[in-house]
Amino acid sequence: MLAELKESVWKANLDLARSGLVILTFGNVSGIDRRRGIVAIKPSGVPYDAIKADDIVLVDLEGGLVEGWLSPSSDTPTHVELYKAFPEIGGVAHAHSAYATMFAQAKREIPCYGTTHADQFHGPVPLTRLLVEPEIAQAYERNTGRVIVERFAGLDPLELPAVLVAGHGPFTWGRTPAEAVETALVLEQVAHTAFGSVIIEPRLAPVDACLQEKHFRRKHGPDAYYGQKKEK
Amino acid sequence: MLAELKESVWKANLDLARSGLVILTFGNVSGIDRRRGIVAIKPSGVPYDAIKADDIVLVDLEGGLVEGWLSPSSDTPTHVELYKAFPEIGGVAHAHSAYATMFAQAKREIPCYGTTHADQFHGPVPLTRLLVEPEIAQAYERNTGRVIVERFAGLDPLELPAVLVAGHGPFTWGRTPAEAVETALVLEQVAHTAFGSVIIEPRLAPVDACLQEKHFRRKHGPDAYYGQKKEK
Amino acid sequence: MLAELKESVWKANLDLARSGLVILTFGNVSGIDRRRGIVAIKPSGVPYDAIKADDIVLVDLEGGLVEGWLSPSSDTPTHVELYKAFPEIGGVAHAHSAYATMFAQAKREIPCYGTTHADQFHGPVPLTRLLVEPEIAQAYERNTGRVIVERFAGLDPLELPAVLVAGHGPFTWGRTPAEAVETALVLEQVAHTAFGSVIIEPRLAPVDACLQEKHFRRKHGPDAYYGQKKEK
Amino acid sequence: MLAELKESVWKANLDLARSGLVILTFGNVSGIDRRRGIVAIKPSGVPYDAIKADDIVLVDLEGGLVEGWLSPSSDTPTHVELYKAFPEIGGVAHAHSAYATMFAQAKREIPCYGTTHADQFHGPVPLTRLLVEPEIAQAYERNTGRVIVERFAGLDPLELPAVLVAGHGPFTWGRTPAEAVETALVLEQVAHTAFGSVIIEPRLAPVDACLQEKHFRRKHGPDAYYGQKKEK
Repeated sequence: MLAELKESVWKANLDLARSGLVILTFGNVSGIDRRRGIVAIKPSGVPYDAIKADDIVLVDLEGGLVEGWLSPSSDTPTHVELYKAFPEIGGVAHAHSAYATMFAQAKREIPCYGTTHADQFHGPVPLTRLLVEPEIAQAYERNTGRVIVERFAGLDPLELPAVLVAGHGPFTWGRTPAEAVETALVLEQVAHTAFGSVIIEPRLAPVDACLQEKHFRRKHGPDAYYGQKKEK
Repeated sequence: MLAELKESVWKANLDLARSGLVILTFGNVSGIDRRRGIVAIKPSGVPYDAIKADDIVLVDLEGGLVEGWLSPSSDTPTHVELYKAFPEIGGVAHAHSAYATMFAQAKREIPCYGTTHADQFHGPVPLTRLLVEPEIAQAYERNTGRVIVERFAGLDPLELPAVLVAGHGPFTWGRTPAEAVETALVLEQVAHTAFGSVIIEPRLAPVDACLQEKHFRRKHGPDAYYGQKKEK
Repeated sequence: MLAELKESVWKANLDLARSGLVILTFGNVSGIDRRRGIVAIKPSGVPYDAIKADDIVLVDLEGGLVEGWLSPSSDTPTHVELYKAFPEIGGVAHAHSAYATMFAQAKREIPCYGTTHADQFHGPVPLTRLLVEPEIAQAYERNTGRVIVERFAGLDPLELPAVLVAGHGPFTWGRTPAEAVETALVLEQVAHTAFGSVIIEPRLAPVDACLQEKHFRRKHGPDAYYGQKKEK
Repeated sequence: MLAELKESVWKANLDLARSGLVILTFGNVSGIDRRRGIVAIKPSGVPYDAIKADDIVLVDLEGGLVEGWLSPSSDTPTHVELYKAFPEIGGVAHAHSAYATMFAQAKREIPCYGTTHADQFHGPVPLTRLLVEPEIAQAYERNTGRVIVERFAGLDPLELPAVLVAGHGPFTWGRTPAEAVETALVLEQVAHTAFGSVIIEPRLAPVDACLQEKHFRRKHGPDAYYGQKKEK
């Protein structure tokens, strides 16, 4: 069932493992079949090199198991919340990559200090609030998804395809599982250079809004001119 | 003798070498056969790629040689002290990995700043006291083990499977040699992100106790739900 | 057409990708045939491992397409401005490498703190001014080239083969595309060590002018004695 | 002539290149035949993967060419000064490795903050004085060797097999070319952890002299017990 989706989710998980963003089994990628409302996700705690495409687990948008002989990632309810709230997205990735996690642990958003950031993210990378005790005690992973959604009130998730969960780490997403992983890579690079830039210049201000706008619009939306035209 | 144990210790030493946590011959992993009270450990100062499973040295819990044509790691008495004091553990790893060593040299424990830490360690990663001169002059490696054990009074070594020896570096452990090496990898990641988080936010406080508890209990103990069920 | 130039530009782009200085499709290298006034450059947004030598795009010094079935890098007008203003150069490279980008984002030039720097760059690595709004709104990439050229008034581009574009990242160049990529590598090393040196000693001054001069002249100009004699 | 020495110098240069301590052609290793007074060294500015054992250049202790069709490393006179002043050493390595270079550029010696340092270096890693203008203008590379030798008045070069040349970078040495490269690796690790330890704890003091002594004597001298006994 959904062999193509499982294949793309499997490949995206391997790409995440090879990217250097994760150690051991930490990190997971999912994808969704929007027509059927079915999410495909990495099994929980299985080493990346032991997973086959067929081991990818299928769940529905209530988180119920649809197909699979392994338990899905324990972060599945977070992924599901994002799919429900952001109908434009087709893939979600989660990694405890070092520099993005440093900002998440420090409870700081990442301001836009340069064009690498502006190419990918339309504004600072947002930070969630901390979960309160009852949200941690019950349905913790679902509530993690909910504080992300709460933080994105008024924001466009495809223009800002990443979040830092306070005290935890980043989630990224995109139109496909592969895009979610690519965004995780860019986020880590952006976090690394932001980290260093502020060490060099502690009072650093973000770059001008017009430069941010220019770079984002070079790559995204109707006036984009980066890359090859899609009709080719 | 004990071919299976030697094989697992040999593999764990190779995994440590490939992990990037050690340079040259620095670092060592051991395992124990609890029934016979025999510890298997890397020979001292031999390059990782020159070691065969059969070169792993066997010693007893007094540190006496049981089998082997090579001298055991000079840190053997430290490993033996840990096995004697912590009956639950089956493997010990030692590496001078960069970020964990920075904290050990700075004589600072690693507070729990996020969920990567909380997933693995139930509380801050503890720091030993410094050894005093007579402890250094006589039975130095055994005394290194003893200050670790002293520091763990009242702590559960399987819930807190790592220590920073002040002015030296980390030791990690687990149910098996492989687990000890995995914990060394996680400790390095945790140390790296803690290092960066405090640079971004020098007055950073640990995350809430309930979040720490939640993440540790997701992966450990009777209510764990991370990973695959063991009976599968 | 210009198969040799396309081959050298293709190889230099692969070298850039393998160097670890770029992620995904970020970064581009070009070369020029000075006799014909034709620039060869990487196609825009195509993964490095999918590019063949024949996919390299040819443009003229007005930026008009000469040959190619793919769109050229969106940074092409920046490269073209550099070729027009710096007749000595034969190759240009652009990467958002981490440490050079930290300085560009922090809007700081890189002072000469040691001989690695002095071997390659005759003076501090310069920083451009920020572009103003009309320069960003219209012909942005061409204007990026122009602020670089403006900054190099009175400077010799072959003695100072790198620049930091404020809020953006580095461009490097040389006599050939391969040299431009080598300079990108050296710049990143120089930026990394400068970054760390200032953390260790915040009031660090550049090294003496006579040491800078000595090291630069060991490798460049009529009295150079580093490397093998060219007539060999 | 001296095929075995050339082979060991060639291998040590390749090991240096593979270690990640050098980029491009930066860095060089030499070895000496003490009986004949002949030094074997890497040719200048030749890519590591293009060098064959037979390309290694032979010079005498006045720096005169003995054998070779390529020019020797431009740093040859520095190596020769070290061989003349330190009769115990058999190999010298030079690399602009990142963290050791940060300390050299910051003009700071590296205090002994932990046992990784104490295992290898008997005291802080020393820093030379800056060369003055006449020393730079004339016989610069020989004078670089001389300020190193000057700094080692009263120090044992085999107990302290590394130096930081102010504003430049590290030189390391040992009984053989291979040992010199190993020491370069350890120095970089020691510099990296010292760098981070001082960021965590800016007022950090060196570890106690007795701990330093203990660790150094575990590995060096008549009472050493690290590694395998040599007669084996």
